[in-house]
Amino acid sequence: MRIVVALGGNALLRRGQVMSEANQRENVRRAAAALAPLAGGHELVITHGNGPQVGLLALQGASSGPDEAYPLDVLGAETDGMIGYMIEREMRNLLPQEVPLATLLTMIEVDAGDPAFREPTKFIGPVYPEEEARRLAGENGWLIKQDGANWRRVVASPLPERIVDLQPVRWLVEKGTIVICAGGGGIPTARDESGKLQGIEAVIDKDLASELLARELDADLYLMATDVDAVYAGWGTPAQRAIRCATPDAIRAFEFPAGSMGPKVQAACLFAERSGRKAVIGSLSDLPGILAGTAGTTVSASVSGLDWH
Amino acid sequence: MRIVVALGGNALLRRGQVMSEANQRENVRRAAAALAPLAGGHELVITHGNGPQVGLLALQGASSGPDEAYPLDVLGAETDGMIGYMIEREMRNLLPQEVPLATLLTMIEVDAGDPAFREPTKFIGPVYPEEEARRLAGENGWLIKQDGANWRRVVASPLPERIVDLQPVRWLVEKGTIVICAGGGGIPTARDESGKLQGIEAVIDKDLASELLARELDADLYLMATDVDAVYAGWGTPAQRAIRCATPDAIRAFEFPAGSMGPKVQAACLFAERSGRKAVIGSLSDLPGILAGTAGTTVSASVSGLDWH
Repeated sequence: MRIVVALGGNALLRRGQVMSEANQRENVRRAAAALAPLAGGHELVITHGNGPQVGLLALQGASSGPDEAYPLDVLGAETDGMIGYMIEREMRNLLPQEVPLATLLTMIEVDAGDPAFREPTKFIGPVYPEEEARRLAGENGWLIKQDGANWRRVVASPLPERIVDLQPVRWLVEKGTIVICAGGGGIPTARDESGKLQGIEAVIDKDLASELLARELDADLYLMATDVDAVYAGWGTPAQRAIRCATPDAIRAFEFPAGSMGPKVQAACLFAERSGRKAVIGSLSDLPGILAGTAGTTVSASVSGLDWH
Repeated sequence: MRIVVALGGNALLRRGQVMSEANQRENVRRAAAALAPLAGGHELVITHGNGPQVGLLALQGASSGPDEAYPLDVLGAETDGMIGYMIEREMRNLLPQEVPLATLLTMIEVDAGDPAFREPTKFIGPVYPEEEARRLAGENGWLIKQDGANWRRVVASPLPERIVDLQPVRWLVEKGTIVICAGGGGIPTARDESGKLQGIEAVIDKDLASELLARELDADLYLMATDVDAVYAGWGTPAQRAIRCATPDAIRAFEFPAGSMGPKVQAACLFAERSGRKAVIGSLSDLPGILAGTAGTTVSASVSGLDWH
């Protein structure tokens, strides 16, 4: 089976943890230990988030001076290097030497006319009191918006349209290579007037980018690994209930938070509809159950309606 | 012909330039324009330096706080992401869409007992007055040494022993993919007592790492692109003279500066001796002449003695 696994941000950094190398190494090690058993019998492609890491680099760059405040495409590429390396190294330490591993950078093209550019909505980096946020926005050309009691930088999150160099990933997967790629939703690029690819100041949703990748690779399963065991209807209410499986239409009847489960459910529905195959949302610690169909939430056009755990 | 090209630091950042994204983009664009014509008739693997970029990230991390001062393996991986992406994007904009491109992270294993660890000699990052250097060394656990009138951080530069995941690079090259990899001499790793690969606080010489890569890939030509047109005997003296070709023994009879041409000549000699094929040191702007044998300095066991331009 060919599986694309998207690692959620918590696989790299838990809520409240400082972003030290040691913490990330420890978390990546745990994720690799969960993923390594899949590598035996399956073709495996691993993607990952990069939100906090991009935020940190943006902050460091901005405080270092205007010349060294790099745009989000470059910062994203930096985090792909850092996180991709950590995943590859920990996987390498767990897998037999004859299993090849490769980490590739992945440019993803978006439409320069994507409506997301007209109204940026994606929060990145730390929260600030209003005054400091306004000062930073002025100094760095950021757009800022209120986020609860505080303010944050906000950027566009356009839809992924095309993976620029997919063929090498395909070749490597066909050779049995465990591939790590499309980190942080891929490096955001768009065509300029002359048709040249340019980096852009945007972030692409990781779950949607990984959905595109899974579809283009004809993956049998698209798995979004997160820190909850399933998608819940009525999450946080006394009536919350874990969904075992659902058709895209059935699961879309519920509302999910835009900041967390919403994009995952949307990506799962898109994959199920466009590929005719299965997407699963579940916990990294439940991988054997997810593969056996007993854990996580499966979205598929070929189940009947909706079933609960 | 299969060619491994190592881009010198000046291909990314010229002396005295601020390390802005715009400057690096412009320089990478120029390098890509020189390299793109090679992609038509040859298999091409591109490596690159990362010295100033690692220095900047180390500095930003250190000033951001001890939790966020990442070790050199992680910073190296970040720069591989950034620089590799910029090279791939500019090459993508120059090459026909049917020519595949891929940027891979490359862990390189060194011997944990390498004598370089006992006496670190490689300067990295900016220069400081002695007092500030001592303070930073104390705060960050750096080793520092005098560099001219100032002081700098110094780290070990062990020899590259093994490219950890070479097979994917080989497969991609065989498929006609232009591969960008082994940036900054590769991500430095070594085995711990239990045999696990761990990142290490070191930098591997880019020219030696690329030599190992070229040899392992059975490259026909190993080309070190720099900002001078050839290797000169008596450089900087009235009698300076450009070497056209030489055997390893003949070129070793001269002395070259340890900080610049020395490692390149050493890497060229190693490649010529170990592979039986040609290494060339020359200017990126002379690529057609280098391939035609009329520019640069060729080191080969099969030329006779030494010849001048």
